[in-house]
Amino acid sequence: MQTAPRQDAGLTPAIVFEHLQSYQRTAALQAAIELDVFGAVGQGHGDAASIARHANAPERGIRILCDYLVVSGLLEKEDGRYRHTPSSAAFLDPKSPACLASIARFLSNTDMRRPYEHLAEVVRKGRTILPGEGSVEPENPVWVEFAQSMAPMMAPMTGPLGRIVLDGHSGPMRVLDIAAGHGLFGIEIARQNPQARVTGLDWAPVLRVALENAKSAGVADRYDMLPGSAFEVDFGGPYDAVLLTNFLHHFDFASCVGLLKRVRAALQPGGRAATLEFVPNEDRVSPPMAAAFALTMLATTTAGEAYTFRELAEMYRQAGFGPATAYPVPSSPHTIVMAAA
Amino acid sequence: MQTAPRQDAGLTPAIVFEHLQSYQRTAALQAAIELDVFGAVGQGHGDAASIARHANAPERGIRILCDYLVVSGLLEKEDGRYRHTPSSAAFLDPKSPACLASIARFLSNTDMRRPYEHLAEVVRKGRTILPGEGSVEPENPVWVEFAQSMAPMMAPMTGPLGRIVLDGHSGPMRVLDIAAGHGLFGIEIARQNPQARVTGLDWAPVLRVALENAKSAGVADRYDMLPGSAFEVDFGGPYDAVLLTNFLHHFDFASCVGLLKRVRAALQPGGRAATLEFVPNEDRVSPPMAAAFALTMLATTTAGEAYTFRELAEMYRQAGFGPATAYPVPSSPHTIVMAAA
Repeated sequence: MQTAPRQDAGLTPAIVFEHLQSYQRTAALQAAIELDVFGAVGQGHGDAASIARHANAPERGIRILCDYLVVSGLLEKEDGRYRHTPSSAAFLDPKSPACLASIARFLSNTDMRRPYEHLAEVVRKGRTILPGEGSVEPENPVWVEFAQSMAPMMAPMTGPLGRIVLDGHSGPMRVLDIAAGHGLFGIEIARQNPQARVTGLDWAPVLRVALENAKSAGVADRYDMLPGSAFEVDFGGPYDAVLLTNFLHHFDFASCVGLLKRVRAALQPGGRAATLEFVPNEDRVSPPMAAAFALTMLATTTAGEAYTFRELAEMYRQAGFGPATAYPVPSSPHTIVMAAA
Repeated sequence: MQTAPRQDAGLTPAIVFEHLQSYQRTAALQAAIELDVFGAVGQGHGDAASIARHANAPERGIRILCDYLVVSGLLEKEDGRYRHTPSSAAFLDPKSPACLASIARFLSNTDMRRPYEHLAEVVRKGRTILPGEGSVEPENPVWVEFAQSMAPMMAPMTGPLGRIVLDGHSGPMRVLDIAAGHGLFGIEIARQNPQARVTGLDWAPVLRVALENAKSAGVADRYDMLPGSAFEVDFGGPYDAVLLTNFLHHFDFASCVGLLKRVRAALQPGGRAATLEFVPNEDRVSPPMAAAFALTMLATTTAGEAYTFRELAEMYRQAGFGPATAYPVPSSPHTIVMAAA
């Protein structure tokens, strides 16, 4: 390229331009998943023409999409051929056991995205503009979608959570899994401890997804279902452990304390409650994914929050639990916070 | 925070999660502009409560929004107080002469964003799903919006473009500004050379915006208007220079050559044609903003493209011009490509 000398760049408005167009990154990744671009690249279709044939799309569209994915860091390109990055090979190629492509379905749910089209209004209200209680409105079908599509995102965390909650406990025990969703956390406890019996609590249509997963894992004979609201149904018990995964963040502080009091009442003395949460540091702006999650709670709930460890520990304290401990989950943005009754 | 030891992180799915939620970055910046968060911070309102009073919004919403902006790199936070980054002070504070906040209006235009909601379909078609010719459909009102709101983004480039095109030429001259839009490029030539007479070509409602800008710059007496399509109206002439800013990328290669032939026919021998474009390198994946721009052309036009320098030079050659030269514009993602008739 024949080029005149370039002056020193200095401060540029690139960050503004990029943010105003960031929605294109979401659209490009969703389109690439839908067109099986990552599957094609994984099968060795490295040039735009081959990927286009695989996707049954014209080369022009595929080439522009793939170049955009390279700019975004989701593919690599060398000598005109596309190939996986380590991340896309692990998390976007459908052949990979860690493939997360299905989470695009939940994260692109039209209802859940709608508040972001009116985010200034959301901020002015200080709460979701979705009807009723927002995402936690009773029987909201979005949680069936969550249970079906988010399992691959949660699967890597089930092992660590199971080990932390069990902590070598191998005898008979009962575990309540509140907001069980896909059920994977409770199911993993049943796998790690063949004498554990697990009760999954969620809306009935969601529990059908959990039961299917329990069957696949071979633990359905030790999996009970408790359909209904975590704030209303009788928990039964007593339990040795209660799981609250991806749940407390939907509610205000006082509601969480109230729920944790009910949890404590359903636990054996010394029994454990374990939450899995996005837990930002006290500055509320780090680490990035945990801190950014607060915006999702602003947009989709009436009073939810990405709670700090100090806040979660204080909830436990006010509900009568002992001191809480935080266990960041390796290779994930989540943290387990556990306390004993 | 009381924490158990953390394992080595290794490969994480963060990049997938972040892309699927990137639309939130766009929404957060748009909301912050609408709520004048950057104005408030610039006025010294550093804590969430003060910004909330300024924005007439509850503290909860403002605090979560501002924390998200910090995570996104659009604000800084220290000891609970928000403050500008160098970029937000320069480009988002309404007090700054370089403020770009108005470009959010054009870049968030609902019609222009619609194709991204169906991007897989766009890729399968290999062209926009917008009706007719997409963004360049005759008289599309989006270009009035462009002329009104994108001027601050283009303003820093007018000086360099004017100097490159004039190259010391101070005598009487005539300049045609094709797709004039806000008119700022032609107007700057008229400012730099008091003997230059400029003709702005665009749709009539767009030229009204350009004329207002020519009046403000005190050059309206040397500013003529030529309403209509660049592919159809008689250019008149002969001209000493023709500008084609942000224009060729909307059309296929052959259409660009056809247009450049018309341009050449309207130029004096030795007269100059200058395009301002996003020009990616030959790899089409760098630099990021220029390369990413191809997706916008896929989504909003029938056959547009972010053309490489080699392609633009070849268009000039096929239209009968001499060799082309590229002039990257300092501190911007744009490049001027110029050739002589």
